[in-house]
Amino acid sequence: MCRWMAWLGQPMLIEELLFNSPHGIVDQSLESRMGAETTNGDGVGLGWYGIGDEPGVYRSVQPAWGDPNLRELAAHVESPLFMTHVRAAIGSPVQETNCHPFRRHNWLFVHNGFIADFHLLRRDLMLAIDPQLFAAVQGSTDTEVVFYVALTLGLEDDPIAALERTVGLIEETARGHGVENAVQASFGVADGESLWAVRYASDGHARSLFASADAGSLKDLYPNNERFERLTDDDRLIVSEPFSDLPGVWNEIPEATAVTVRHGGVLEKRPFHPVPAPAPA
Amino acid sequence: MCRWMAWLGQPMLIEELLFNSPHGIVDQSLESRMGAETTNGDGVGLGWYGIGDEPGVYRSVQPAWGDPNLRELAAHVESPLFMTHVRAAIGSPVQETNCHPFRRHNWLFVHNGFIADFHLLRRDLMLAIDPQLFAAVQGSTDTEVVFYVALTLGLEDDPIAALERTVGLIEETARGHGVENAVQASFGVADGESLWAVRYASDGHARSLFASADAGSLKDLYPNNERFERLTDDDRLIVSEPFSDLPGVWNEIPEATAVTVRHGGVLEKRPFHPVPAPAPA
Amino acid sequence: MCRWMAWLGQPMLIEELLFNSPHGIVDQSLESRMGAETTNGDGVGLGWYGIGDEPGVYRSVQPAWGDPNLRELAAHVESPLFMTHVRAAIGSPVQETNCHPFRRHNWLFVHNGFIADFHLLRRDLMLAIDPQLFAAVQGSTDTEVVFYVALTLGLEDDPIAALERTVGLIEETARGHGVENAVQASFGVADGESLWAVRYASDGHARSLFASADAGSLKDLYPNNERFERLTDDDRLIVSEPFSDLPGVWNEIPEATAVTVRHGGVLEKRPFHPVPAPAPA
Amino acid sequence: MCRWMAWLGQPMLIEELLFNSPHGIVDQSLESRMGAETTNGDGVGLGWYGIGDEPGVYRSVQPAWGDPNLRELAAHVESPLFMTHVRAAIGSPVQETNCHPFRRHNWLFVHNGFIADFHLLRRDLMLAIDPQLFAAVQGSTDTEVVFYVALTLGLEDDPIAALERTVGLIEETARGHGVENAVQASFGVADGESLWAVRYASDGHARSLFASADAGSLKDLYPNNERFERLTDDDRLIVSEPFSDLPGVWNEIPEATAVTVRHGGVLEKRPFHPVPAPAPA
Repeated sequence: MCRWMAWLGQPMLIEELLFNSPHGIVDQSLESRMGAETTNGDGVGLGWYGIGDEPGVYRSVQPAWGDPNLRELAAHVESPLFMTHVRAAIGSPVQETNCHPFRRHNWLFVHNGFIADFHLLRRDLMLAIDPQLFAAVQGSTDTEVVFYVALTLGLEDDPIAALERTVGLIEETARGHGVENAVQASFGVADGESLWAVRYASDGHARSLFASADAGSLKDLYPNNERFERLTDDDRLIVSEPFSDLPGVWNEIPEATAVTVRHGGVLEKRPFHPVPAPAPA
Repeated sequence: MCRWMAWLGQPMLIEELLFNSPHGIVDQSLESRMGAETTNGDGVGLGWYGIGDEPGVYRSVQPAWGDPNLRELAAHVESPLFMTHVRAAIGSPVQETNCHPFRRHNWLFVHNGFIADFHLLRRDLMLAIDPQLFAAVQGSTDTEVVFYVALTLGLEDDPIAALERTVGLIEETARGHGVENAVQASFGVADGESLWAVRYASDGHARSLFASADAGSLKDLYPNNERFERLTDDDRLIVSEPFSDLPGVWNEIPEATAVTVRHGGVLEKRPFHPVPAPAPA
Repeated sequence: MCRWMAWLGQPMLIEELLFNSPHGIVDQSLESRMGAETTNGDGVGLGWYGIGDEPGVYRSVQPAWGDPNLRELAAHVESPLFMTHVRAAIGSPVQETNCHPFRRHNWLFVHNGFIADFHLLRRDLMLAIDPQLFAAVQGSTDTEVVFYVALTLGLEDDPIAALERTVGLIEETARGHGVENAVQASFGVADGESLWAVRYASDGHARSLFASADAGSLKDLYPNNERFERLTDDDRLIVSEPFSDLPGVWNEIPEATAVTVRHGGVLEKRPFHPVPAPAPA
Repeated sequence: MCRWMAWLGQPMLIEELLFNSPHGIVDQSLESRMGAETTNGDGVGLGWYGIGDEPGVYRSVQPAWGDPNLRELAAHVESPLFMTHVRAAIGSPVQETNCHPFRRHNWLFVHNGFIADFHLLRRDLMLAIDPQLFAAVQGSTDTEVVFYVALTLGLEDDPIAALERTVGLIEETARGHGVENAVQASFGVADGESLWAVRYASDGHARSLFASADAGSLKDLYPNNERFERLTDDDRLIVSEPFSDLPGVWNEIPEATAVTVRHGGVLEKRPFHPVPAPAPA
């Protein structure tokens, strides 16, 4: 019900990827091709690492396609690591505190998908949040709760393992309420150095997720493409939905898979297995 | 680039037509079938006659589909005459003062379409506005300028004739700037008693416009339809795009045609002929 | 940190009290005289009873003094019972879901004041909410939590008694966290027929609260006042802060007092005694 | 009716001056001491030079004190030259296109004050705008019109001289409409390299305007002030209203005076004399 993208690589003027790329994320806000909804017009968020210890976060309830401040920011800020999310709300209010990414210290979190019957599970899941973190939840989306549960379960130590525990806990909690197929997700996580992405759905049919090919392969495939010429081995994009239709540019991340992206062109894949956890007492 | 609807008839709870009708105007904000754009998410406006000498006007930059205040207003206000407009901006900023309907005293005005190359014509057209009215222009759309030119040329005395002069003046001004096919429009006008609608394009291919059939015909066609049972001879809808797919419910208003709707089920059609006027000195 | 007003009486055009009264609530949004803060510019809300089973609620993050939609609504809606609240945020985000009044079915709730160290108490207080109601909490203010705890503790049966239990529970919970003087409040409650107001602070120094004198007294005091001539015995205003400086018009509601206002000019006062309740397990 | 500030000097984290300075511009949005209005809560704007050929411009209708995106931007963007403006609207709508600074290519423009009876003069003043620039006017404030008239009259060649002609033209136009004392202003202008400020009112009582003392003087005056230690000879602030109460820090710019600020600590003053110009034909 949303679309997101993340960049890790050379410092990049944000508008290059948001506005100047064919079928980029802002185009996808108006007309997604692969999303559950065509329109992702219920707000936009941008988190970027650069000046300051923590990432900056811009969040707006305007549709991305028509938000002049997003355009300004994108045209005047460079970053080696940033995430953008366009939202299609499914139930929770359109407000800035429900826009992704969510931030805690140096961590950012985005999500495309949903927790099924979240209204039934919300209380139990919020109880699973570390009481010290509880008051930091400011919005009313399922995603923010997922993030705080994951922080509780060790996101800052091992993001993938923490998300496996979090998804396990959600599925277990859901079963306790008679809810099957609780999790539908692609998650994106960043800490300022690395980027993690997860594609997983309880029913085995997760939202789409893609990683860009490495720079060398792209240059071999499209030797005359001016945009690709500037790419270095350091550069990697993770996207809900490919930006363009060029074959070979995008590699689909398989179902139930987690990837870790690091500087130097590192892209590691591993299976993603939820760890069944008892529902909170 | 927009969609609009107008109701004249028995006092109607606004949400009946905005939210409770299949493929109503709010659905059309998210997914128009016949519009130049699929998405009309750049703001919404509602003008209604009821308490007070002038109509009330609610305007919001949020997409209609996600605006909680629009939903509240629609659920708690009844009106015998109201107009709603969902906007797809093409150039001018997304701001409340660019949302339709525009109001002057007891008059309301909506528009679906555009003035071609408006940036070339804007100054000349604003000069054609009565200097006494000039300062009342608060936004930056072509539509607001059309409205104030029409007020200058007699809208309050004879809306159709004034719009014929206004369109003629715009076409003439445009030709002076080398712009052909200047006007693309369906216009809606109301004064609290009556409703006028115009379908016209300089190139002969105007945006769609429909009028609902009279209540008697609807009941004959669909004798078991609960919604139609409540209709009276007084009730009439004018819409950019049909609300439902029931055959016979909607009559297309022909090209270059103006209609006048009055209480008592009156629906008069006449040809719409722009009156060539000299561009302002 | 806020200002509110409530009207119960003859159907009244809302703008009469919001915009046309000297030092009315909208003036107070820009320049409060008696509030903890001068400026109450972090949003506005209006709840009114009229058409429909439930009250309508309009909420906006714009300052009341500059919100054109509030002005339109107020100029075109009449109501025999409505509440308006202007907000000065102290910590929680400026968003529509944090604007008062809060609504549950036919009930409205407003609050001026705060729960001390709410971030320490938020989890425990949310746990005190009926699990069936938990998912209905959409914002992040202390007030919304107070409302849902009060609903849990019987607001719909006996509003004052439920608020006594709610305040007792909050004070008890706070003590468990080492927080003294937990509650600072004037509360307003309505169900469509009646109006309740409470003035109470744990430390004995509650925010100001006033009730208008009965119509007869006002006419005796100011026999030539045109506004008062229109008043009937049915009419009563409850306000955080007097609208004008006319002596005798406003009666201060004492500390630790609850009032019930009913049609027919009824204004009953009773002491407000929090009922100590155990913190939730 | 507004407050503004401009920084020219070493690259500065914007929040240092917006949020971390005692009685800085964001404090002044909530509680101005010297302004015509206490509250400047009708929007905020920030223009900054940095990445890109043109300055970035962020504009929001939220009050500066409660705008989370302004806080984020300020905490994560550094700039050697930026301007911030907090608005108190007097008549024109609260919308982003009415927020300062206004931008044209590499030029920024802010204004505190007003054009008297602007509604009477608006048409004539808009006619004085170069027809090529006319369509670029997007809002409805007097300030934007002043900016475009000044651009028409040579702002990009000699900002002070162009503003002298602009003010002269406005005063002359006003007299033609029977309006005396037409201009009340402090203006701020920047082109990415330099900064210009004007203090002028037709009636000789202009809004306040101050320049910070040079770094050397500040360090002599307050040898133990940690903030001043970081200042270099390059640094200069122009403000509507002093940020703190430290004597000697701020030098009032006299009535009818223009100042030019350049890198290297240059602050040049000259008299500002409007040049009478004929009203447009």
